[in-house]
Amino acid sequence: MRKQSVRRTVAELAEHVGGRVIGDGSVMVERVASIESAGAGAIAFVEDAKLLENAQNSRASCLIVPPGAHANAESLIETARPKLAFARIAELLHPPKQYQPGIHPTSVVAASARIDASVFVGPHAHIGERTRINAGAQVHAGVVIGDDVRVGRNCVLHPNVVLYDAVTLGERVTLHAGACIGADGFGYVRGDAGYHKFPQISTVVIEDDVEIGAHTCIDRGALGETHIGRGTKIDNLVQIAHNVFIGERVVIAAQTGISGSCVIEDDAVIGGQVGMGDHVRIRRGAVIGSKAGILPGKIVRAGTVMWGVPVRPLDEYKRLNAHWGRLPQMREDLDELRQQVKELAARLAEKQ
Amino acid sequence: MRKQSVRRTVAELAEHVGGRVIGDGSVMVERVASIESAGAGAIAFVEDAKLLENAQNSRASCLIVPPGAHANAESLIETARPKLAFARIAELLHPPKQYQPGIHPTSVVAASARIDASVFVGPHAHIGERTRINAGAQVHAGVVIGDDVRVGRNCVLHPNVVLYDAVTLGERVTLHAGACIGADGFGYVRGDAGYHKFPQISTVVIEDDVEIGAHTCIDRGALGETHIGRGTKIDNLVQIAHNVFIGERVVIAAQTGISGSCVIEDDAVIGGQVGMGDHVRIRRGAVIGSKAGILPGKIVRAGTVMWGVPVRPLDEYKRLNAHWGRLPQMREDLDELRQQVKELAARLAEKQ
Amino acid sequence: MRKQSVRRTVAELAEHVGGRVIGDGSVMVERVASIESAGAGAIAFVEDAKLLENAQNSRASCLIVPPGAHANAESLIETARPKLAFARIAELLHPPKQYQPGIHPTSVVAASARIDASVFVGPHAHIGERTRINAGAQVHAGVVIGDDVRVGRNCVLHPNVVLYDAVTLGERVTLHAGACIGADGFGYVRGDAGYHKFPQISTVVIEDDVEIGAHTCIDRGALGETHIGRGTKIDNLVQIAHNVFIGERVVIAAQTGISGSCVIEDDAVIGGQVGMGDHVRIRRGAVIGSKAGILPGKIVRAGTVMWGVPVRPLDEYKRLNAHWGRLPQMREDLDELRQQVKELAARLAEKQ
Repeated sequence: MRKQSVRRTVAELAEHVGGRVIGDGSVMVERVASIESAGAGAIAFVEDAKLLENAQNSRASCLIVPPGAHANAESLIETARPKLAFARIAELLHPPKQYQPGIHPTSVVAASARIDASVFVGPHAHIGERTRINAGAQVHAGVVIGDDVRVGRNCVLHPNVVLYDAVTLGERVTLHAGACIGADGFGYVRGDAGYHKFPQISTVVIEDDVEIGAHTCIDRGALGETHIGRGTKIDNLVQIAHNVFIGERVVIAAQTGISGSCVIEDDAVIGGQVGMGDHVRIRRGAVIGSKAGILPGKIVRAGTVMWGVPVRPLDEYKRLNAHWGRLPQMREDLDELRQQVKELAARLAEKQ
Repeated sequence: MRKQSVRRTVAELAEHVGGRVIGDGSVMVERVASIESAGAGAIAFVEDAKLLENAQNSRASCLIVPPGAHANAESLIETARPKLAFARIAELLHPPKQYQPGIHPTSVVAASARIDASVFVGPHAHIGERTRINAGAQVHAGVVIGDDVRVGRNCVLHPNVVLYDAVTLGERVTLHAGACIGADGFGYVRGDAGYHKFPQISTVVIEDDVEIGAHTCIDRGALGETHIGRGTKIDNLVQIAHNVFIGERVVIAAQTGISGSCVIEDDAVIGGQVGMGDHVRIRRGAVIGSKAGILPGKIVRAGTVMWGVPVRPLDEYKRLNAHWGRLPQMREDLDELRQQVKELAARLAEKQ
Repeated sequence: MRKQSVRRTVAELAEHVGGRVIGDGSVMVERVASIESAGAGAIAFVEDAKLLENAQNSRASCLIVPPGAHANAESLIETARPKLAFARIAELLHPPKQYQPGIHPTSVVAASARIDASVFVGPHAHIGERTRINAGAQVHAGVVIGDDVRVGRNCVLHPNVVLYDAVTLGERVTLHAGACIGADGFGYVRGDAGYHKFPQISTVVIEDDVEIGAHTCIDRGALGETHIGRGTKIDNLVQIAHNVFIGERVVIAAQTGISGSCVIEDDAVIGGQVGMGDHVRIRRGAVIGSKAGILPGKIVRAGTVMWGVPVRPLDEYKRLNAHWGRLPQMREDLDELRQQVKELAARLAEKQ
């Protein structure tokens, strides 16, 4: 993607991130790059002094380095957190693509919808009755938005996103292609002749600065809402069931599945392909390893790191796994001991 | 979602579910709610007498309770299965949203397609040649239906559903957003220069009253059909491969993957993130725990409950898991015993 | 799917696959079928002499058999690899459906896009600025293609596929419905107030003859590209993260997730629901069993077969699993031995 880029001097970039310029602050930079591929006009970063050697041959115009690192470049920006500075400089050099405000004539917008004049609506979108889309939002091609939806300022809805009726998005929410928000939760009650749907009549609320990956599904609540807190980031193909409550700044990697009524508190980090039974509670800042499985109703304590199926503390998981790998040795040891005991018993019997 | 609602008296609702009114049968009810959030005009339920305490402070206008439960509410409906009654009352109070029949002018319908006059077709849908859509069906925005498809009465196809050519849906089938029915199965034969596709030329048949979650994929059969039986409910992001045969009233939770030619018999319940190798057979009423893995060709006996990778009966799985957790103890016991045997041997040797 | 079919004589088909006709080479064949369902006009195959018995009652007009197999049919084609021959004959008898070249009037194509005159563009597609679509490609209904995309000759983009900006597809690439190529990778840097996106500004390159399943997501690279090599086949609902490099003729089954910067070399075979941590390297021709989990940074050696979480060589995995199943027995043996040692010690003490 040839993202549009903006030229800045090293001095301006250093100021933006609160870093210190070493060398020529007037050097012009116009894009971010990896150490290996950076050439003239590019800025790269070295997170760790141990990796500085890789940087010695870099042709970057500027390197972002940790304090005290002496790298061989036209200019340096010294800062305590180079990777963070790099991300923030990328925001400056590669601003999001701009879209011309206006509603594409092939889109279908309900008469009662209220779309701010600064909103971009691409081709073949559909926006339902009484839905409101606030300033600066982008609604890309093929997006379908139901009735009574609220889309906050500067949201970006990539192509073919679906918002069912009455979903609410805060500001600066980004939904990648095909994300599906507000489908019915999966709840049935067995009757005599088959299943009846348990009512799935509540909604989904997504707070500010949330980003949601492609084809991720977040179901509407049954009787109470499904909730995604501010600043939470969710990867592709994740399943979030009805009545789940996710706090702020939670990170959830791809293909994880979260069953009904789970609570994930602020700052938790959930790996990929994790599965949680219903009514699980992950307390603040806990970390769940990829592929972990969590039984229904389990409470994971704040700040702990948990792995495995079913989850255990990482240390314990590692220890058990090591034992598991030595099971054949253990069996051998046991058989050998059995033989020794047999011999001892025989010798003892002889003596009698 | 402010689902449209309908007002009924408690007496009418009790009659609908065959329950017994206690208290004032003329109380008006207009929505279902949870015990905690219910207020005037709402009906809630208590499934289990043990949970009655929660209900004592409920402000619901009516509570559905098991026989003999004495709850403190304006009115009660007593019935053997309160949750089922609640679901059936929700069907009455919150009927599905109605859509005006007609084909949106932005949709593209092949000349040879036959669409009943009572069908709703939203914007930007596409319906192929010779496809037939029967009375009362809803085809929402962005749905793409291929050629020679049959869609039964009162089906609901949510936005951006895709039906490939020649797929058949029974009556009252609901497909959530993005469900994809009839893509090619994943079968190849290795040739000298790479892979050749094994022919994927059959179809998918979905019977009445099936509900399928968002972004679930059901591939067409290779030489024989893929089949989903009546009343089966499938959650989001499920993968069903070519030639799978699923019986009636089967329940499959999110992100489960079912490989080619598996058979799942009536009334089986499959958890989330389960994986089945090909040619697995799950017999009638078996239950497969979430995250289970089933080896190709395995037969799971009727009515059993299976867990783990590879699956074992739940009891055995629990026992093995407990042993696994005590592996370090077992290693210690073994080492201690080894030491004892060594000492015994030394003492015995001394005596000689 | 009533795929259009073409009639050929057995002799012509045998010549196409380099096989030998036994019986009447002038018999007409017009479709492929399974042994069980084949009738007049159909050709079926028997891969293995052991399965010949099934074939004795086949009503197929022609059977493809391994050398020396004596089956009872109107005609036989003898060839070393019957299943491969069957697949190649299916290519001949069931050619892909043809679509009339032209751009549907409801589609929106940017003025600067270059679409070859032989391309089919279905309804409600959107093609962005400077995008180029080469001869013979099919862009089905609801497909959204960004700016600066390259789509090679004879690609097939099924309904609702999304290609983000600047993605490149080689020739004969098939993307099933809803496949999403080029969404942002999932990379963030923690700042003081929440997460900043690590720049995700590179692209995805997909080489010739790749097939990608429904709803599979392939994210764009962060600073370097994500790459899918020639002839690779990827199933439904697979997640491929930023900067992954996949070689040629790799096969990846459904619901597998591949984290950032993994490398999968040529001819590897990856099962379903596999999870790989970042920076994993799967060397040439390795096979990863379904549901396997691979820790970050792990290197899997060429040609090995690996199973389990975390992965181990299949033999070791099987052995450990067997030991696992016998843990209760081991515990019993240990307890019994403990008892014996106790008795020995007592007897020895008596003697003193």
